[in-house]
Amino acid sequence: MTEKKSTNIILFSGDYDKAMAAFIIANGAAAYDHDVTIFATFWGLNAFRKEENIDVDKGKMEKMFEKMMPRGAEKMGLSNMNFGGMGQKMIKKVMKKHQAMPLSDLIEMAQEQEVKLVACTMTMDLLGLQKEELLDGVEYGGVAAYLADAEDGNVNLFI
Amino acid sequence: MTEKKSTNIILFSGDYDKAMAAFIIANGAAAYDHDVTIFATFWGLNAFRKEENIDVDKGKMEKMFEKMMPRGAEKMGLSNMNFGGMGQKMIKKVMKKHQAMPLSDLIEMAQEQEVKLVACTMTMDLLGLQKEELLDGVEYGGVAAYLADAEDGNVNLFI
Amino acid sequence: MTEKKSTNIILFSGDYDKAMAAFIIANGAAAYDHDVTIFATFWGLNAFRKEENIDVDKGKMEKMFEKMMPRGAEKMGLSNMNFGGMGQKMIKKVMKKHQAMPLSDLIEMAQEQEVKLVACTMTMDLLGLQKEELLDGVEYGGVAAYLADAEDGNVNLFI
Repeated sequence: MTEKKSTNIILFSGDYDKAMAAFIIANGAAAYDHDVTIFATFWGLNAFRKEENIDVDKGKMEKMFEKMMPRGAEKMGLSNMNFGGMGQKMIKKVMKKHQAMPLSDLIEMAQEQEVKLVACTMTMDLLGLQKEELLDGVEYGGVAAYLADAEDGNVNLFI
Repeated sequence: MTEKKSTNIILFSGDYDKAMAAFIIANGAAAYDHDVTIFATFWGLNAFRKEENIDVDKGKMEKMFEKMMPRGAEKMGLSNMNFGGMGQKMIKKVMKKHQAMPLSDLIEMAQEQEVKLVACTMTMDLLGLQKEELLDGVEYGGVAAYLADAEDGNVNLFI
Repeated sequence: MTEKKSTNIILFSGDYDKAMAAFIIANGAAAYDHDVTIFATFWGLNAFRKEENIDVDKGKMEKMFEKMMPRGAEKMGLSNMNFGGMGQKMIKKVMKKHQAMPLSDLIEMAQEQEVKLVACTMTMDLLGLQKEELLDGVEYGGVAAYLADAEDGNVNLFI
């Protein structure tokens, strides 16, 4: 119906480098005037977590997941050559040197550019993540919401 | 030609969580009346394996791959926080608690919804998997079959 | 505008098997007369590296990345069951047995079929890779170049 192009990214991965790729594409597409959505599911939800500890009531297993998963974008590791976090530190150093934006800034920029950030409610349940723990401005939906956007999309990616 | 929308997923990964994502999207798209295909290649073929041991004649190396790869959907590990299978057990427990379908049920549901399941014959050869070892109802094809579906597709994903 | 279909693959992964999948799809799509682009970013750039050691001037950290990353397609490991390179050797053996092309040949074939190979300049900077180190015929671009191709694409994949 609409003449606007659209980019729809499923962010499944909880890796720093893959999330960077997702947000660089999203910001690029927004600059090109696409309607852009990042739909985070499974480990990708970690990129939407607030950095501070949010005290919410949850079950034992959900508590365990919460503790084991990185709290927010800057805590995520690399998909490759992570070496217990050393590779991630190296990448961040070279990023600084080359004035590349860290992931948390890329996410902020995406929100400023009105990239729609959607958290998958089904996997939030599984991993025991609650709305209070996720970034302000994040929307909530399931596979139906994703498909409604993506079925008329131009650039659909699973990252 | 056809007015029906289509979703075409390449399932490359042999991870339980990624395969879950693939089948949840596939089932959602089928419910939306898309023509849906899951084309399994490389480690994704493990999701199509029968659980029982099928006795087929094969070479030594093919026998080794057979033994080392998970036999069927429910034996697959997680892409993240697997911890030698512990993470997978945890996920299955929370799935049960939240009444989420296990992968094997998602696959059955896909077959009932007429999602086309295609096994990549080239990688079946490489990994020494034979038709007898894969689920009934699976079709067989190569990259040409995939492209014929995907080039007119709406939601094309590589998982 | 153009009537030709197009396939646009982001190759993010530095795994041998995933890169094989990318180039098999690319070569298939080229045979189907698609305009095909492989845009390599992050670890995917390793598939574009020349095998020989190229002496270029670079910083300490860039030197470290250079040493730690596989030099060229045939040095890349598997995404699964790599076992310190043993799985990769096994796969190469069965590939030979079944007369499947090794990755380096698939890349050569792609170049012969005029698949456009684009290296992501932003991640080249981060990983300290220089043009002299990459295959002849590779083009250079950023996310804008990718989106210009992909926004009218038919088969867009992130691998």
